[in-house]
Amino acid sequence: MSEGLPIALDAMGGDHAPAAMVEGAVRAAKEGVAVVLVGREDAITKELERFAGVNWKALPLTVVHASDVIQMEDAATEVRRNKNLSINVAVNLVRHKKASAVVAQGHTGATLVSALFGLGRLAGVERPAIVSNFPNAKGRVTLADVGANADNRPEFLQGFALMGAAYSSAMQGIADPSVGLLTIGEEEGKGNALVNETFDLLKTTPGIRFFGNVEGRDIFKGTVDVVVTDGFTGNVVLKAAEAEAKVLIGWIKEALSGGSWLVKLGALLVRPALRGVAAKLDPAEFGAQPLLGVKGLVFIGHGSSDAKAVYSALINAQKAVDAKLLEKVAVKLEGLTKKLEEKEG
Amino acid sequence: MSEGLPIALDAMGGDHAPAAMVEGAVRAAKEGVAVVLVGREDAITKELERFAGVNWKALPLTVVHASDVIQMEDAATEVRRNKNLSINVAVNLVRHKKASAVVAQGHTGATLVSALFGLGRLAGVERPAIVSNFPNAKGRVTLADVGANADNRPEFLQGFALMGAAYSSAMQGIADPSVGLLTIGEEEGKGNALVNETFDLLKTTPGIRFFGNVEGRDIFKGTVDVVVTDGFTGNVVLKAAEAEAKVLIGWIKEALSGGSWLVKLGALLVRPALRGVAAKLDPAEFGAQPLLGVKGLVFIGHGSSDAKAVYSALINAQKAVDAKLLEKVAVKLEGLTKKLEEKEG
Repeated sequence: MSEGLPIALDAMGGDHAPAAMVEGAVRAAKEGVAVVLVGREDAITKELERFAGVNWKALPLTVVHASDVIQMEDAATEVRRNKNLSINVAVNLVRHKKASAVVAQGHTGATLVSALFGLGRLAGVERPAIVSNFPNAKGRVTLADVGANADNRPEFLQGFALMGAAYSSAMQGIADPSVGLLTIGEEEGKGNALVNETFDLLKTTPGIRFFGNVEGRDIFKGTVDVVVTDGFTGNVVLKAAEAEAKVLIGWIKEALSGGSWLVKLGALLVRPALRGVAAKLDPAEFGAQPLLGVKGLVFIGHGSSDAKAVYSALINAQKAVDAKLLEKVAVKLEGLTKKLEEKEG
Repeated sequence: MSEGLPIALDAMGGDHAPAAMVEGAVRAAKEGVAVVLVGREDAITKELERFAGVNWKALPLTVVHASDVIQMEDAATEVRRNKNLSINVAVNLVRHKKASAVVAQGHTGATLVSALFGLGRLAGVERPAIVSNFPNAKGRVTLADVGANADNRPEFLQGFALMGAAYSSAMQGIADPSVGLLTIGEEEGKGNALVNETFDLLKTTPGIRFFGNVEGRDIFKGTVDVVVTDGFTGNVVLKAAEAEAKVLIGWIKEALSGGSWLVKLGALLVRPALRGVAAKLDPAEFGAQPLLGVKGLVFIGHGSSDAKAVYSALINAQKAVDAKLLEKVAVKLEGLTKKLEEKEG
């Protein structure tokens, strides 16, 4: 329903805004992704001329003015008081079918609140989830929730399971993804109260192929396609994993640069091969993570995103639009909605 | 108080028992660590002769017979019914001051229960914690709890903070370690209900230098010396981190072996340098993790431990004995005990 529409980019959010946002948008536009840049028109236009020249209008780029920007130190609820914030204007473009998706790299909490109130929840969703997808031993794994919800109930995790499965199907083409519940022992009954209640719920949830419990190691071993967890554990694991990869790559670089001339020669020869591994692990390659469960596609990136991360986020957002991710999530949740209606009716 | 005593090794617990246990013990004994092997005497003696020859009694090795072994599929509570289990006999040696520490690589839950009931809790401890210590960007970090407690209360985490700090002081020589509370945002108030209550408690806990909240990335960045978390999150993070390191090293090996002959030549030259990085990340280098909060030193290793991991566990257990880890944990908890007594009295 939203093909052909541009992607709304909050050009003012993030540590390197607006320069990195505009540069990333120019790169994506050169590959045919239409982008509407949302924020202070004068600042954006200046950057557009810097990165794409005075003829930037030849690219599929437009600007929609928004006078204000949420600051990192502001409370997320600030978005409910000021409709002129760039994130609110971007979300409204999706709401009014003038954009196919939002990409935002600023204040995560503010983006969550703006999306939740600006777009509303899909039927069947108790809580939206941020979904992450990253490489592991067997390909890629989808992890949900990675930070939208600090305190969780089993029903929230049930929704995360369905949304994670929908993501895996739409974006990775896995017809019937397996879903594991993250806990601290493989057997049923090993875990905390939240996990044990969720286990019973997932066993009877229509529309998912429930594998059972999985442990931390299974995320990287590739035991299942989708790993479901509360937003607290998911966020901690994701951030720890990103930092670990960075530290490890750093150690390897150090080991290769600090040795004898033979090691240095060897390092020179293997550098291209190792570059591929480093690239695989670079969060900038993926750019942003979808917030699923709201009536519109919203992608949330790191505040520290550079132009490459913004570019990747826009490319991936366009892929999600083309893959009809939103529609597939809605369909996946229908089973749950019907079941809930039966229960209530 | 326990110097000069041998370390009690459960020779029957673990996937590769008793061969790997005996081989690891022989290697540690050759370096002067006295070990008492606990388990089926005939089986252990046979392995001793295999790894150390008929004159194995020349090494500081003894055997204490235990007729039974807990099986991985048994409930942990089984240890309360059968005093002849090797883990119970090993714990009793510490209880009766015939051994300085227990090292066990078998059923983690059973070891926990055996230690808790066989040794009892130290004054001030609500729940014992498993403490992990692993390399990061700035040296090493101590993480507690990594799996002794699935469901947690703020008072448990308060104890984990003190025990983690005591570990960091005793084993790493850090005089006044900084302690961070693991959550999903750096600012006070960012996290779940458990974290927010714990934050208030840690601010006023005597005997720790509380840094405030830390995120998943800080574990590897080295922001603090000790990271405190509930045993669910801690276990998931630790297992994910171990698996990630393994997968990453695997990718690097693959990248270096799959390329042109120039890459292969380079790989040959850098191999010794990379081996150091791989070794740094190998859990077998550390061997086992202490369970702190009980009246005795207990080290819990992976069920999959090989002889090298058993050897490392014994060496580290001896270091903990020499560093008076148990006494230092008890002293650290005294402040809390007094405070609790004042509150109650």
